[in-house]
Amino acid sequence: MSQVITLTTDFGTKDGYVAQMKGVILSINPDARIIDATHDIEPFSSKEAALVVSGFFGYYPEKTVHVVVVDPGVGSDRRCIVVTYKGHLFVGPDNGVFTPFYMDGSTFHVREVTNPSYFKPLPHPTFHGRDIFAPVAAYLSKGSRFQDIGPIVDDPTILPFPEVVSTDYGLKGKVIYVDRFGNLWVNIRSEMLTKPIEKIDMGSLSIKTLRKTYQNVPDYDPVALINSSGFLEIAINKASAFNRFGIGEGAKVKVIWRSDNVEDHEMP
Amino acid sequence: MSQVITLTTDFGTKDGYVAQMKGVILSINPDARIIDATHDIEPFSSKEAALVVSGFFGYYPEKTVHVVVVDPGVGSDRRCIVVTYKGHLFVGPDNGVFTPFYMDGSTFHVREVTNPSYFKPLPHPTFHGRDIFAPVAAYLSKGSRFQDIGPIVDDPTILPFPEVVSTDYGLKGKVIYVDRFGNLWVNIRSEMLTKPIEKIDMGSLSIKTLRKTYQNVPDYDPVALINSSGFLEIAINKASAFNRFGIGEGAKVKVIWRSDNVEDHEMP
Amino acid sequence: MSQVITLTTDFGTKDGYVAQMKGVILSINPDARIIDATHDIEPFSSKEAALVVSGFFGYYPEKTVHVVVVDPGVGSDRRCIVVTYKGHLFVGPDNGVFTPFYMDGSTFHVREVTNPSYFKPLPHPTFHGRDIFAPVAAYLSKGSRFQDIGPIVDDPTILPFPEVVSTDYGLKGKVIYVDRFGNLWVNIRSEMLTKPIEKIDMGSLSIKTLRKTYQNVPDYDPVALINSSGFLEIAINKASAFNRFGIGEGAKVKVIWRSDNVEDHEMP
Repeated sequence: MSQVITLTTDFGTKDGYVAQMKGVILSINPDARIIDATHDIEPFSSKEAALVVSGFFGYYPEKTVHVVVVDPGVGSDRRCIVVTYKGHLFVGPDNGVFTPFYMDGSTFHVREVTNPSYFKPLPHPTFHGRDIFAPVAAYLSKGSRFQDIGPIVDDPTILPFPEVVSTDYGLKGKVIYVDRFGNLWVNIRSEMLTKPIEKIDMGSLSIKTLRKTYQNVPDYDPVALINSSGFLEIAINKASAFNRFGIGEGAKVKVIWRSDNVEDHEMP
Repeated sequence: MSQVITLTTDFGTKDGYVAQMKGVILSINPDARIIDATHDIEPFSSKEAALVVSGFFGYYPEKTVHVVVVDPGVGSDRRCIVVTYKGHLFVGPDNGVFTPFYMDGSTFHVREVTNPSYFKPLPHPTFHGRDIFAPVAAYLSKGSRFQDIGPIVDDPTILPFPEVVSTDYGLKGKVIYVDRFGNLWVNIRSEMLTKPIEKIDMGSLSIKTLRKTYQNVPDYDPVALINSSGFLEIAINKASAFNRFGIGEGAKVKVIWRSDNVEDHEMP
Repeated sequence: MSQVITLTTDFGTKDGYVAQMKGVILSINPDARIIDATHDIEPFSSKEAALVVSGFFGYYPEKTVHVVVVDPGVGSDRRCIVVTYKGHLFVGPDNGVFTPFYMDGSTFHVREVTNPSYFKPLPHPTFHGRDIFAPVAAYLSKGSRFQDIGPIVDDPTILPFPEVVSTDYGLKGKVIYVDRFGNLWVNIRSEMLTKPIEKIDMGSLSIKTLRKTYQNVPDYDPVALINSSGFLEIAINKASAFNRFGIGEGAKVKVIWRSDNVEDHEMP
């Protein structure tokens, strides 16, 4: 059993909420290796957390426990859950933050946290991160069994991520994320780009060529590429596309296939 | 002896000051387990640090060493001290950052750091965090004795936190902290709410009912509750009370007892 | 071999890029002790990273591996390198981020990362931090040999840091860094201040005396001192010089020697 526990929250660190969670974990499992994944998720954005966590978990050793506390519904009747997926354990609220794991066809298991030996007595109704999720993660990292957490959940909450629409002429997608550098992530994944591209349009911007890397265009020029997470990305070499275009999450992006080459490439 | 050392500073991380402190600790005690509590304390705000540290330390294993470097007076004649309180050790400047530990009636001990075997020779006059507090913490985490640090301090510096005024009609308190979510912490603690409440007033806002959690009111409505740190809190469900009301630290809050019930509840 | 790996990036943490790097490291070396130095380097600022890393590395135990990923040229033909200097190992792009180690006359060795057993197959062209630098660091922290990384680099990239000009009358330097507190670091180091000072001029500000610490002047007064990193610093006691003067990186600073004492001090 790996003793690694990653923490992903929208708490920032200034208030000491994260520090409280770390103390709870170390008090239960002094050998836990706590890794700060991020505490800078946009407040209340379960979608952003879903995207970030599904992007990093696979790089960790199997049996790592990933705690995700982006929890605007804390204190409501939303469930506390643990998910197993691809050999990892995920602990957090049942608000859709684990949606990507339910959607790709791989096996996953979800249980509701009900066994009181896994969490603090009388958890505070506004801070399940400290009183439920942190203790559950600490016990799992010590080897406590997933099967004993509580009953199986058959209907975990699923967030409606925007879908890519495919037509004869191309794909219609949307910007789903803006990263620290102002790079715009589009929900179109590399494996969807099955034909030669005529152009990629976003607002008044039109890009003709998909590049390998930012450096393939001059400094401060726009560039489209498949990013390190496998998504189509629209960026500016050494600057922020978000600032340049004033465009963020939800913006429409069209990929247009090259019309004269459609036949050549439909039959590989 | 626990080897856990928590770090709380107002340094941010960008300048490498915190990285320097971590290196000093690991050079003295390679087995120390360094936990970033927070480096985002408001610059020079000893009060904020006092509130945050007193809120999280109790969740850690006993004998944890907590380093607190919010130190606007570095280089003056303010003392460097170590405090023991409830089985934990605290290292930092004697500027009132440990005030909460002196005020609750529990046993505490304070010593001034004067023993030169606990810190670097010729500590730089602007960075005691690196040259005094980090080494002291590292040696304490290895088992060096509190008693050998230096002489007992009988008169540690106390910060004037605002006090709650109790009248026949209710309590007068103040906002003492605004957290990352814009929730307003009031210095009125749950144990002070000994009678049924008529209303809670802050500026033009009047709230009738104390709730258990944010979810007990509709989205974007104001709510008053006892927060996870035991303080009265005025918040907005899923939004920022600080942004909504434009009110922050120092704002006056009144709790009014229900007048017709005073007698019933004065004699339990 | 120390198992400590420090991370310095301009990634922030919100996107999960740093979390991905940490997972890669722990998957290769589960015993690695990952230390977040900072992820808040100004995006694309190799100079800032150079200054910060050269400031903190020496406080760590020998054989610590320091990963520095500020990499605006990722995906171009800039090399990936490992540098050894004063018993430490440094991993990052060859964009000048290690310039200070090449300039001080001490021994250093540079090798290009070409041995494919040290990194991921098919590294993504936009994220060498995850696919090359993190694995290289993890293998080095486990004891893999520097000599096997790849060929010796004789011509590492050097960044043009501003130089101090010395005249009969004094020194001409520049502000090279603004820290979290708004303190202005000047590229004039303590060892350059070999004569009595008449005054220190920056724009319309003139300071007569070099002090030991901020506390040597009244609150909110300007002060000049040698900071904890050995640089001349212009600051405001308990406030931000950057905000006060509206002056930042690149601003000119003059140190004027006391004229009547020149002769006395030219011959020690």
